Amino acid sequence: MIIVTKPEATEEQIDHIIERIAEWGFKTDVSRGAMRTVIGVIGEEGAIREKPIAAIAGVESVTPVLKPYKLVAREFRGGNDSVVKIGGVAIGGPEIVIMSGPCSVENREQITSIAADIKSAGAKVLRGGAFKPRTSPYAFQGLGLEGLKLLAEAREVTGLPVITEIMDTKDLEMIEQYADCLQIGARNMQNFSLLKEVGRSKLPVMLKRGMSATIKDLLMSAEYILSEGNFNVLLCERGIRTFETYTRNTLDLNAVPVLKAETHLPVVVDPTHGVGLREHIGAMALAAVAAGADALMVEVHNSPELAKSDGEQALLPQEFADLVARVKKVAEAVGRSV
Amino acid sequence: MIIVTKPEATEEQIDHIIERIAEWGFKTDVSRGAMRTVIGVIGEEGAIREKPIAAIAGVESVTPVLKPYKLVAREFRGGNDSVVKIGGVAIGGPEIVIMSGPCSVENREQITSIAADIKSAGAKVLRGGAFKPRTSPYAFQGLGLEGLKLLAEAREVTGLPVITEIMDTKDLEMIEQYADCLQIGARNMQNFSLLKEVGRSKLPVMLKRGMSATIKDLLMSAEYILSEGNFNVLLCERGIRTFETYTRNTLDLNAVPVLKAETHLPVVVDPTHGVGLREHIGAMALAAVAAGADALMVEVHNSPELAKSDGEQALLPQEFADLVARVKKVAEAVGRSV
Amino acid sequence: MIIVTKPEATEEQIDHIIERIAEWGFKTDVSRGAMRTVIGVIGEEGAIREKPIAAIAGVESVTPVLKPYKLVAREFRGGNDSVVKIGGVAIGGPEIVIMSGPCSVENREQITSIAADIKSAGAKVLRGGAFKPRTSPYAFQGLGLEGLKLLAEAREVTGLPVITEIMDTKDLEMIEQYADCLQIGARNMQNFSLLKEVGRSKLPVMLKRGMSATIKDLLMSAEYILSEGNFNVLLCERGIRTFETYTRNTLDLNAVPVLKAETHLPVVVDPTHGVGLREHIGAMALAAVAAGADALMVEVHNSPELAKSDGEQALLPQEFADLVARVKKVAEAVGRSV
Amino acid sequence: MIIVTKPEATEEQIDHIIERIAEWGFKTDVSRGAMRTVIGVIGEEGAIREKPIAAIAGVESVTPVLKPYKLVAREFRGGNDSVVKIGGVAIGGPEIVIMSGPCSVENREQITSIAADIKSAGAKVLRGGAFKPRTSPYAFQGLGLEGLKLLAEAREVTGLPVITEIMDTKDLEMIEQYADCLQIGARNMQNFSLLKEVGRSKLPVMLKRGMSATIKDLLMSAEYILSEGNFNVLLCERGIRTFETYTRNTLDLNAVPVLKAETHLPVVVDPTHGVGLREHIGAMALAAVAAGADALMVEVHNSPELAKSDGEQALLPQEFADLVARVKKVAEAVGRSV
Repeated sequence: MIIVTKPEATEEQIDHIIERIAEWGFKTDVSRGAMRTVIGVIGEEGAIREKPIAAIAGVESVTPVLKPYKLVAREFRGGNDSVVKIGGVAIGGPEIVIMSGPCSVENREQITSIAADIKSAGAKVLRGGAFKPRTSPYAFQGLGLEGLKLLAEAREVTGLPVITEIMDTKDLEMIEQYADCLQIGARNMQNFSLLKEVGRSKLPVMLKRGMSATIKDLLMSAEYILSEGNFNVLLCERGIRTFETYTRNTLDLNAVPVLKAETHLPVVVDPTHGVGLREHIGAMALAAVAAGADALMVEVHNSPELAKSDGEQALLPQEFADLVARVKKVAEAVGRSV
Repeated sequence: MIIVTKPEATEEQIDHIIERIAEWGFKTDVSRGAMRTVIGVIGEEGAIREKPIAAIAGVESVTPVLKPYKLVAREFRGGNDSVVKIGGVAIGGPEIVIMSGPCSVENREQITSIAADIKSAGAKVLRGGAFKPRTSPYAFQGLGLEGLKLLAEAREVTGLPVITEIMDTKDLEMIEQYADCLQIGARNMQNFSLLKEVGRSKLPVMLKRGMSATIKDLLMSAEYILSEGNFNVLLCERGIRTFETYTRNTLDLNAVPVLKAETHLPVVVDPTHGVGLREHIGAMALAAVAAGADALMVEVHNSPELAKSDGEQALLPQEFADLVARVKKVAEAVGRSV
Repeated sequence: MIIVTKPEATEEQIDHIIERIAEWGFKTDVSRGAMRTVIGVIGEEGAIREKPIAAIAGVESVTPVLKPYKLVAREFRGGNDSVVKIGGVAIGGPEIVIMSGPCSVENREQITSIAADIKSAGAKVLRGGAFKPRTSPYAFQGLGLEGLKLLAEAREVTGLPVITEIMDTKDLEMIEQYADCLQIGARNMQNFSLLKEVGRSKLPVMLKRGMSATIKDLLMSAEYILSEGNFNVLLCERGIRTFETYTRNTLDLNAVPVLKAETHLPVVVDPTHGVGLREHIGAMALAAVAAGADALMVEVHNSPELAKSDGEQALLPQEFADLVARVKKVAEAVGRSV
Repeated sequence: MIIVTKPEATEEQIDHIIERIAEWGFKTDVSRGAMRTVIGVIGEEGAIREKPIAAIAGVESVTPVLKPYKLVAREFRGGNDSVVKIGGVAIGGPEIVIMSGPCSVENREQITSIAADIKSAGAKVLRGGAFKPRTSPYAFQGLGLEGLKLLAEAREVTGLPVITEIMDTKDLEMIEQYADCLQIGARNMQNFSLLKEVGRSKLPVMLKRGMSATIKDLLMSAEYILSEGNFNVLLCERGIRTFETYTRNTLDLNAVPVLKAETHLPVVVDPTHGVGLREHIGAMALAAVAAGADALMVEVHNSPELAKSDGEQALLPQEFADLVARVKKVAEAVGRSV
């Protein structure tokens, strides 16, 4: 921790800062300049990070030296990658995994048919929402338990493991009975009660980046889950909110190489929500793989114009199959497989 | 709803759009231009809003004519303001209400002493966190039930009604026993399970704007609460996330007159989190009142450099008292009182 | 300057960093931690700021201790405010100055009539664009020299000094003949050639904040002007670009108290462009004054629906007169006058 | 153009809107709803776009049906791609072109040596700044004319055509004598005087996207250049400003497929400024190619830690050569070559 004082800080104020830090059990290294004094704090940084040093009179800035996350940091695994399994499917290894399915589970015929389609196209994990976080209270909110049962049936038929979103701590036990992976949506990325709860689950968790979450915020939210004991966490880039309105969100592919460098956790990219325009999802999926993503999540619907949610950004099964073929080529160009 | 087709849309595609809308039970008004066709959809817009029209081939854009919210809209109250009561304190009338207290409840002495200080300075509602949404799992998470009891004790002593944050649907019953108003924090603004739950409470709710929530998003989240039957909702502007890093957030005072025009619900401004720099909270509090806010929420601590959270942005009791005096003058200049 | 090394930095790399800094003529203060080494650079920071220290192998971060601006810093004037004069009108003193006029000069009758209206309402400076920065090449681009002459005529009649925008270094001599103050628009805030050129002018300059300029960027652009010898600079907050689309821009009033603390230069607020919605300009003007602005710039037109630019955000003369009366009350509430 | 009226609009107001539009020479198609009236304006939209319709009493919103750009629109070329030549190098065809060189020209030895290195690695165009837009007036501002001469010498030696930045209308003639392509930097993307000036040049122009420019803004700025007669324009995505601070900017690759769909002009991506972190430039370069970019611009320096600008984000010549080999593979995976 490095403290810089204000130009007008008095000697008394500087002495008080140093004393306060000593009271908290830390040593200091003080370097007095013409304008400002620089105070280095020596000792275990985690312990002093939460102290309100900036509240002490005379302090201009407080800069941490270490990262605020520990368990998710790449160094924690000695620089190695973590591999997270959904059912029997490994994410984070050499193979790029494609997850797919509709936005919402709507009925048996819909989910079973789409599950079969995406499996034959090359998808390895089935997605589908039973609990839907919709901006409007008047929009379709998902089938709930019925949707979970239909997902489990589709798994039975196709063998594809299932990922689905959890929105409420109350629903964890129920969802655990049917799903293979829990999804935390972007709007709940800082729902800390929910993060703690899934941190106690046996299931892996895919954590989506919030719309205005920095990469650091995302890692801190993942840290919540790991700190409760669940190390099977996937991070998902799904677009951030910027001033640009042509695209639904701004898929931030910069986050892919940054996350791969900062953390051992696998990185998933969701181009569907990221760009939000059906005709551009393919280009962004290819770019995500070239940038280093470990997995993709792409929405597919067999009748988008009748979909109960997000039909305008779903690919048709045939479009999806074509995309998988193109993804395969780019994956090979960067030394991976699909 | 106004649909504009792509320049390359075929006659068949345009016919299919019109048929699909007819199947959904709506009439259309079609105007064919040289480049694009404009299709007006006639009928109850709420019913067609959720249809995936943009997924139909040939559609370029879909523009709603009506607002997506009903219950929160100013017109719903015939243009009148709603007045929401916390305990006996009315917010939304001529008087500007000041809510204050520490970020977190830390112990009996702390909360009781601060409560007494802010009351004598002119605050009408006591705030204090018992459940704290902290970015880091290693930071102080609040006293929980113990904190709620201490808040109730401070109310006993001072007579000030209490507002405190709820983070989990599981905690509602417990918090209802101790608090006079529920706060939904910025990070939970789109935690729709929580919104529905507090929508069934008897207590009023203060809903804070999310860090990347548009004004429309905020109103839609409020609509969730009202649609469950709870009309006692306050909206709180507390700063949005922008590219500017000098300030902790960017307090968006533009939202104040906009919200006052769009909705009948009272508007609260939280300059503490909004600007996040102790020395500038006062200026932003005055500006909020000049912009038309109905209430202010300002954090106060009697020993900021020992606070367990956010000490760097808490005012001292004396600074707060001075601020209330200045707020009073600006309130009077705009025809209100404190 | 404080340098922090990467965890994996080798001893050779750390030695090389120290040597390189020594070659540049600076001393270092090295503090080796378990994970990272912290190197303080001792000496005149301005001279080392531009060195590519971050390019040296093993460096994780480089944090300056001092501010990058000197001449615009509040300390440069010993903590005092600068007062800048446009014609005989002083900005930056106790009186809040209101500048007004149409977006564009359109013809003699228009500018003379509006000038008379705003003068009688209480404005002290006349604004009007002769060179207009329009997003579209097909939009009205301003009357050019003819517009400048009409502005000078309106000054003749009313006695109001004139501020107008300069867009091209080539036009400086011509504009200097007619105007009392040069305006640099938001889109040219980092047109460094133009900044240098107006830095050599005898006229005062009002520099508008760019749409994505941080407060620091704005101050650095002002530093360009002062560094060429022109100290008569006004800074103008006129709204930044954020994700919010309800308002045209997001007027960032947080910048007002921050700028007043950081620099001695006067601060102007332009609520017209800032919020961009006619009905909310008044609220934001009042808020700007409460936040500490030294001057306001508000657009007025006597026939907005026939204006050649920005008619939708112009106030009518009578609306403007009413606003001035309200501004006066708020100014007095914060100890100033109009 | 589609006009929607306010719920409280009176019959008189609606009639006045229709009359005003008739006065401007347009017909209307009026559809009266329960809450709002929708008025379609029939006729050449370009002619009515600049009218201040939103300023007319009773108007709630004005939505254009057509795009505001014409010459840059893909339809203008009948759906075909434009190919722009820099010297003899074609950009916009099947081959992906790599432009490279240092941030600034520093001296003969530096530019000649780097030019030779990048040529042998596979670059086809040499970049180098002679006029540098630096945030600080105290930073290296470029060698000016001397820099241009050194660039021309490097071209002489290597045969690589040269692209360099123009910052001031005054410099056009001089730069035209030495360069093969003009670059408009991000900070000047809306310097409309400069856009008009380069629109009259014989040289091709690479226009960089401004830090807060929407895709539409970028296209409108390109429209300025084409509307003056210069159709040889390249568009360059180089990162936008968002809330994320880990990366220097947020390289917005979503813009690549969007621009390829909207315009016939070739699209260049600059990952160096886009992500701004040396270790992640390679990943973003690969992703840009996968997303559909026609060209890349990558900065290289042979001694980054002694560079006069931006050394921290320059690749070493050997790193660049390795990157070109990887780019080649991804280009082939998407059916293109290098």
